[in-house]
Amino acid sequence: MDVTALLQSVKNGSTSIAEAEQLLRTLPYESLGFANLDHHRRIRTGCGEVIFCQSKTVEQVAVIFEHLAAREANVLGTRASAKQAEAVKKLFPEVRYKKNGGLLLLERAPVQKIGRVAVCTAGTADIPVAEEAAATAEFYGAAVDRFFDVGVAGIHRLFDKLPQIESANVIVAIAGMEGALAGVLAGLVDKPVIAVPTSVGYGANFHGLSALLTMLNSCAEGISVVNIDNGYGAGYLGAQINRLVEGKNR
Amino acid sequence: MDVTALLQSVKNGSTSIAEAEQLLRTLPYESLGFANLDHHRRIRTGCGEVIFCQSKTVEQVAVIFEHLAAREANVLGTRASAKQAEAVKKLFPEVRYKKNGGLLLLERAPVQKIGRVAVCTAGTADIPVAEEAAATAEFYGAAVDRFFDVGVAGIHRLFDKLPQIESANVIVAIAGMEGALAGVLAGLVDKPVIAVPTSVGYGANFHGLSALLTMLNSCAEGISVVNIDNGYGAGYLGAQINRLVEGKNR
Amino acid sequence: MDVTALLQSVKNGSTSIAEAEQLLRTLPYESLGFANLDHHRRIRTGCGEVIFCQSKTVEQVAVIFEHLAAREANVLGTRASAKQAEAVKKLFPEVRYKKNGGLLLLERAPVQKIGRVAVCTAGTADIPVAEEAAATAEFYGAAVDRFFDVGVAGIHRLFDKLPQIESANVIVAIAGMEGALAGVLAGLVDKPVIAVPTSVGYGANFHGLSALLTMLNSCAEGISVVNIDNGYGAGYLGAQINRLVEGKNR
Amino acid sequence: MDVTALLQSVKNGSTSIAEAEQLLRTLPYESLGFANLDHHRRIRTGCGEVIFCQSKTVEQVAVIFEHLAAREANVLGTRASAKQAEAVKKLFPEVRYKKNGGLLLLERAPVQKIGRVAVCTAGTADIPVAEEAAATAEFYGAAVDRFFDVGVAGIHRLFDKLPQIESANVIVAIAGMEGALAGVLAGLVDKPVIAVPTSVGYGANFHGLSALLTMLNSCAEGISVVNIDNGYGAGYLGAQINRLVEGKNR
Amino acid sequence: MDVTALLQSVKNGSTSIAEAEQLLRTLPYESLGFANLDHHRRIRTGCGEVIFCQSKTVEQVAVIFEHLAAREANVLGTRASAKQAEAVKKLFPEVRYKKNGGLLLLERAPVQKIGRVAVCTAGTADIPVAEEAAATAEFYGAAVDRFFDVGVAGIHRLFDKLPQIESANVIVAIAGMEGALAGVLAGLVDKPVIAVPTSVGYGANFHGLSALLTMLNSCAEGISVVNIDNGYGAGYLGAQINRLVEGKNR
Amino acid sequence: MDVTALLQSVKNGSTSIAEAEQLLRTLPYESLGFANLDHHRRIRTGCGEVIFCQSKTVEQVAVIFEHLAAREANVLGTRASAKQAEAVKKLFPEVRYKKNGGLLLLERAPVQKIGRVAVCTAGTADIPVAEEAAATAEFYGAAVDRFFDVGVAGIHRLFDKLPQIESANVIVAIAGMEGALAGVLAGLVDKPVIAVPTSVGYGANFHGLSALLTMLNSCAEGISVVNIDNGYGAGYLGAQINRLVEGKNR
Amino acid sequence: MDVTALLQSVKNGSTSIAEAEQLLRTLPYESLGFANLDHHRRIRTGCGEVIFCQSKTVEQVAVIFEHLAAREANVLGTRASAKQAEAVKKLFPEVRYKKNGGLLLLERAPVQKIGRVAVCTAGTADIPVAEEAAATAEFYGAAVDRFFDVGVAGIHRLFDKLPQIESANVIVAIAGMEGALAGVLAGLVDKPVIAVPTSVGYGANFHGLSALLTMLNSCAEGISVVNIDNGYGAGYLGAQINRLVEGKNR
Amino acid sequence: MDVTALLQSVKNGSTSIAEAEQLLRTLPYESLGFANLDHHRRIRTGCGEVIFCQSKTVEQVAVIFEHLAAREANVLGTRASAKQAEAVKKLFPEVRYKKNGGLLLLERAPVQKIGRVAVCTAGTADIPVAEEAAATAEFYGAAVDRFFDVGVAGIHRLFDKLPQIESANVIVAIAGMEGALAGVLAGLVDKPVIAVPTSVGYGANFHGLSALLTMLNSCAEGISVVNIDNGYGAGYLGAQINRLVEGKNR
Repeated sequence: MDVTALLQSVKNGSTSIAEAEQLLRTLPYESLGFANLDHHRRIRTGCGEVIFCQSKTVEQVAVIFEHLAAREANVLGTRASAKQAEAVKKLFPEVRYKKNGGLLLLERAPVQKIGRVAVCTAGTADIPVAEEAAATAEFYGAAVDRFFDVGVAGIHRLFDKLPQIESANVIVAIAGMEGALAGVLAGLVDKPVIAVPTSVGYGANFHGLSALLTMLNSCAEGISVVNIDNGYGAGYLGAQINRLVEGKNR
Repeated sequence: MDVTALLQSVKNGSTSIAEAEQLLRTLPYESLGFANLDHHRRIRTGCGEVIFCQSKTVEQVAVIFEHLAAREANVLGTRASAKQAEAVKKLFPEVRYKKNGGLLLLERAPVQKIGRVAVCTAGTADIPVAEEAAATAEFYGAAVDRFFDVGVAGIHRLFDKLPQIESANVIVAIAGMEGALAGVLAGLVDKPVIAVPTSVGYGANFHGLSALLTMLNSCAEGISVVNIDNGYGAGYLGAQINRLVEGKNR
Repeated sequence: MDVTALLQSVKNGSTSIAEAEQLLRTLPYESLGFANLDHHRRIRTGCGEVIFCQSKTVEQVAVIFEHLAAREANVLGTRASAKQAEAVKKLFPEVRYKKNGGLLLLERAPVQKIGRVAVCTAGTADIPVAEEAAATAEFYGAAVDRFFDVGVAGIHRLFDKLPQIESANVIVAIAGMEGALAGVLAGLVDKPVIAVPTSVGYGANFHGLSALLTMLNSCAEGISVVNIDNGYGAGYLGAQINRLVEGKNR
Repeated sequence: MDVTALLQSVKNGSTSIAEAEQLLRTLPYESLGFANLDHHRRIRTGCGEVIFCQSKTVEQVAVIFEHLAAREANVLGTRASAKQAEAVKKLFPEVRYKKNGGLLLLERAPVQKIGRVAVCTAGTADIPVAEEAAATAEFYGAAVDRFFDVGVAGIHRLFDKLPQIESANVIVAIAGMEGALAGVLAGLVDKPVIAVPTSVGYGANFHGLSALLTMLNSCAEGISVVNIDNGYGAGYLGAQINRLVEGKNR
Repeated sequence: MDVTALLQSVKNGSTSIAEAEQLLRTLPYESLGFANLDHHRRIRTGCGEVIFCQSKTVEQVAVIFEHLAAREANVLGTRASAKQAEAVKKLFPEVRYKKNGGLLLLERAPVQKIGRVAVCTAGTADIPVAEEAAATAEFYGAAVDRFFDVGVAGIHRLFDKLPQIESANVIVAIAGMEGALAGVLAGLVDKPVIAVPTSVGYGANFHGLSALLTMLNSCAEGISVVNIDNGYGAGYLGAQINRLVEGKNR
Repeated sequence: MDVTALLQSVKNGSTSIAEAEQLLRTLPYESLGFANLDHHRRIRTGCGEVIFCQSKTVEQVAVIFEHLAAREANVLGTRASAKQAEAVKKLFPEVRYKKNGGLLLLERAPVQKIGRVAVCTAGTADIPVAEEAAATAEFYGAAVDRFFDVGVAGIHRLFDKLPQIESANVIVAIAGMEGALAGVLAGLVDKPVIAVPTSVGYGANFHGLSALLTMLNSCAEGISVVNIDNGYGAGYLGAQINRLVEGKNR
Repeated sequence: MDVTALLQSVKNGSTSIAEAEQLLRTLPYESLGFANLDHHRRIRTGCGEVIFCQSKTVEQVAVIFEHLAAREANVLGTRASAKQAEAVKKLFPEVRYKKNGGLLLLERAPVQKIGRVAVCTAGTADIPVAEEAAATAEFYGAAVDRFFDVGVAGIHRLFDKLPQIESANVIVAIAGMEGALAGVLAGLVDKPVIAVPTSVGYGANFHGLSALLTMLNSCAEGISVVNIDNGYGAGYLGAQINRLVEGKNR
Repeated sequence: MDVTALLQSVKNGSTSIAEAEQLLRTLPYESLGFANLDHHRRIRTGCGEVIFCQSKTVEQVAVIFEHLAAREANVLGTRASAKQAEAVKKLFPEVRYKKNGGLLLLERAPVQKIGRVAVCTAGTADIPVAEEAAATAEFYGAAVDRFFDVGVAGIHRLFDKLPQIESANVIVAIAGMEGALAGVLAGLVDKPVIAVPTSVGYGANFHGLSALLTMLNSCAEGISVVNIDNGYGAGYLGAQINRLVEGKNR
């Protein structure tokens, strides 16, 4: 029974007020239709659904992918292995797989891409994380520009690209090892910078801790940080801000 | 000599092309007037200037404050001690000092506040960081709503405020101890959440590490993190996104 | 407007079903009266209220204490300083203050104490945390037995007390430095052991980390851990389990 | 020589009092039959025995299993690999193996299950730890309800289940990544919450450290924590408290 | 009732064997006089008693000191503050106080010192820990040679002293900062080296962690480590080994 | 368009001064030819190029190697696997591969080696890192002397070599486990010591952290540290200082 | 030229005093025959030699083993893999290999074993480390008693063995997980306890850190600690103290 | 007896060769006059001596200063407090004290300064460490250029100074918080960069850990790191390299 029906039965007397109060308390919140609890799902419905494939079996990924593809035109798999990709391709031959980034994309209703998110990496080894961020942002409706290998060890490469980078609505800055790129970028441009530390490096890098601390301690303004290697999170947040800036979602 | 004068002298032949090239290379970048290098300063000029007072002497704060107040209508001091505030008030009796937050505000040309940033705290002990975030966001032109003591240990207090929180352009979520507030909020609303871990707590809190890790590992979407206790950083970023969403700065 | 009134107005037609749905969505949860959201407060009302005094000013503690004492017979302050105690005593001369434990107790309606919680410490330096745990458990209605200085460095002292310790419903084991007491106890008795690491120690103790890790890694059965120095948490949990075992709260 | 014989020989004069004192001092404690040292074994005898299979060879697990099954009707293996399971099944074809949880159960005398323990997980990846906890609790005589994938990122799923969760005697809350579930649950229900951090996650999760710290720092009341991924420990403790609440073991 | 009386009453028939068995099980272990549980106390009785003064109040130290001095000729206080020393001196004017080391010594029956323990420090800042170790070893009956400021940064100072150091029965090596002294010593001499990391240093020393890890990872043979700044522990262990080597305690 | 052409067009009037200013601001920095941005590349051009092979695929390494070998006489690959080496050898049979050190060297124009860099290791397990350092230093034009297995556990082996070690311009000291070699060396010689901690060891070594902290905390003078296992960095820096001392690069 | 020859040539005038001084300064230390630098080697020569096989190739182990066996009757390999053992057995069929402990023993001249070292473990999973310790102590001439699986979770098993354990000259206490065994033992016996933390455990054990910290923070007296899993170090030190106590090496 | 006398007595037969060998072995190394052991002292003698004042008492500093000033023209005190400075000034009124940097300089024989060391800081709060580095380098004979507040958050300030910075022989780069300055500098110039992390910052800075890790993980070439806040170490090393480059010390 949903809320409308319940209220109707109160109105017509078939349910007493005391009974109705009791029912309201035990109805699942979803049934109450609280907009604030449900919007995520609603919004995404327009964009398609995303599967985090890591630590799922090949079979699980295939089943979930099939299930989602039954009700969504577009489905994105992140952190997908080659084997998982193969299994999904048997079901949906039109799926594209980008191995360097672990992305599995079924796009039957091309997403309209608006605004612009700049995705920058310090080195080439950061590219898989960057592709995850870029694909996620595109999936959620953002136009994306990629600027790879513009780290601070050769800072002139970064300067060449600055005008283009700065013209985006929001910047995703991805770096491992020392992780200085994000802070340098935030010091040079006046747009929000989403910093993604990566686990690229060795030794006292401690699997990304070094870049993470660097980014958290940046003395530049307009910078915030997501988890190590979390391209998905940065892409989602980038698309969300981009959408707000472009005047959607208001 | 600035760039205009240099080009003029090239044009009229008083400087050779070879000499001009050499001069261009050694001119300070500032003189070249690269917009991307300088915008921060320019933008802030409209807003006033901010001083980070912590670890500065009383005299240093007074001198810097006076210097900035000579060319800006508005000046904000963060992490100011009572003694620093006293010294500044001798110079500018109209300065207001908010002890719980360490804020020192000279506002001679009231800032026009647009859009809306929601600043939320889990507990009352997080309020000083929240006041720093809120004052910073207001200083940079954002309207701010405060929602204090809405942490997850009594989650119904949070739910009461959700519709108001969600209607802001961007949300600053401030929490110490376990730090769960930011992730719970991001799971409930569809706006960017800037998470600020605080050093509030004891024991295995390890001076804010606990809340920091919680926030970085949140599985909710649309969340990013700044340094422990960094109210200023969150306020700046919140105002920056708010301004972009409101259509300024484009 | 509360839920009953709302449903009444639906019934009598003064509110349409569509309006009622809208109102239900925006009503504060508290107004909906979800029992599960509110029980804490209700239960405690029977026991009195507790103030965590640490990091509050003398004035704040006095004001909150006065406020709570206006509606509760009993009020407990934890981690109270001598100055805070003095301020509260001016308002309520009958308040008792236990310096070694930072406890401030106003008990106008003596709590009936049932069952039994055993509070054990490894050393004498752990006693302040133990007193916090014991006073909390008593405040929430548990009879408490104290066994201090029974650590494993002189394990025969522990064995003397085992029969008494084991006859309690639940055991709180408090230890700093190496923290072995909790695991040894859990290996000897068949009752739930709540382990409290303390920050007592020096050097590689790292402010309680050593005892915390020891307790988490205990290979004995029937043991769980709370935060470093968290006597309050252990006392609350001990009283809660004790109450359940004694057949209350069901 | 045992104690009875010794006392007999004192009585009939064949051993002097001085000799008897000396002998008493060197008798193994076990021979003295101190009940408090032995109860664990006795109690478990009624329930069957448990083998921790991790880091044992296939042969060792088979031998130990056979040995225990010779004197117990029921045997539980935790953290068993598929190969270990296979070897045991050759000996006891009636053994059931649950791969997702690594559980190996020989139950020849069905355990009577009393009371109720609620086992909750934040995500689907936490299920193996939850199955270990649930199977352990059932093995030790608790009825168990499972509530999987009710984490705080979609908190409405949790609210749907609250009344059922709260009606249990004790709650096991299992979560990786940010680990907020346990604290949120403890804030909503008035039953003991045993929190189990899991190593599920990546990056700044640091193999479960993030969830562990979150849980230890929870500001909710009635919560305690076991080791990362320690489903067995939580299940044992849950069953122990459940048994006490149901009036057994007193 | 003690064991002798109990056995007597068994012998004369006033207590039955069954009753006696029951009584034996509930007698405190101490009453049973198990030598292995009690030897520490007995041995020390010959040496005097030691008080760890840190984190005790001035009054507590004075009371305990007086209590111990009532039954022991010699009493040693470690980590005593100047104020604590003053209070004790009022009671026992003959007490000597060594501020640099926090030692408070009442020696009314001069201890006979045998064998030899070498106490070495890397720098002058390590001397307080060394004095604690040396005084402890002397208190427990070891002759002590002190070799201060022989760290590896000027390794020739160490070589000068090697023959003397090596002729001791056991060596205590105390070092902060990099902590290399202990490993270098163990590589040069064939005697047990007890390594004491100190918290002397700054920055990446992390309060002694650096020296601790160095010592634990030493690839030299014949070295073991005690807690950071734990001069007492090293002195006790050194005296214990020294005594065994000199043929006492066997 | 480059700067010369631009200035030319200003001079001849085909570009206005305002236009020229605008163009200057958007020209890539590289085009401006700032010497300080580019020297690295120029200097290395004389030495050949280096590829960091780790985490690159066999194909990527082969392609990059081929590309660099097309314009440089000499190419060095570091951290190359046997498979990567094989693929490169197919293209350039004259390439030499040193498995213990992961070095892949194409040297068609023998590098002139000047000055002297001493590369020392504490143990034999540190040799791969040492070979990386030595090969890098040689590649960049330094003569290298190798002193392996001269760690402090057998310090006389070190003393034998001191005069030779000290006569170098700069010393690279490589050690795992306790890492004391670097500090001991710096205390004995008056040349810059570049310390390289290695991940050699186990247990509380924590993958090189132990040696890293030891080296950072060395109280000897004239020592600095690079990342764990970073033979390349130490070799580069050693060659750089060596070159400066020999009077090149000034 | 050795020292004797040099002094001879001074005496007979063929070398001037100035020349002799110069030569003395540059002679390798070994040639000077400083007893303190060389004793290790000399002492061990009587016992045989030990190879640390971990991280060496099969070939390297075989070659070194052969080399040592050419001049020593007895050779011990620690941390040897099955493959390494196989290769050595081809050369020396009489070699014995103990897989659970990774020990490879060639004992052609049976070592005389004196005194007694007690090697105790908390659990069965600690046995490989214990076997390494025991075999090392035996190789260096100590009689060894093994007491396995006497951890504090079932402390009565420990008490049964106490008299035997205590009668040894020195005790090696090996434990993973919580690591409480060593402190409990040191509190019960009056012999030196060498504590070996093991990496046995999971979760917040952090690869042995938990047991390491427990042992370092033990408040019992007469305890010191070696590196995680360092059975060899504990065995060597145990034998060294045992030898000193038995009156050898003086 | 020194070596010359000993050899003389061998030559004239008053000491036998066997006796001489024995004496040589027990002579302190210093007496042997090994140049490599002593050079530090000798070299510094030319420069004056340095006192590390931190953790010394006012009296100790005064005494040591006086002692050194008796045999050296120049003395430098680092990390000196105002009180220590006052005490020294009473003895040597000509001493200069720089409070911001804790430097106490007695320079009676002006040091000749050669070459050039560039000392750069990211922020103004890093200046005390920079002054320590600069004063140390000057004391040891280097000309120093200071470049303060040129951090990457306003990278154009750094670019202005690059040509001057790059012309030094060696660069000291000092930064707290994110610590990116050192890596950026090393990427821009071709001179050795000595990186000094400072403890300036808050939160996840963890007292300098953040900057330390950033610097160790820098992917730029020609960079090495000293301990947190270790201005002295960087200044010493900078002067040492500078001296070598200028052709001294060879």
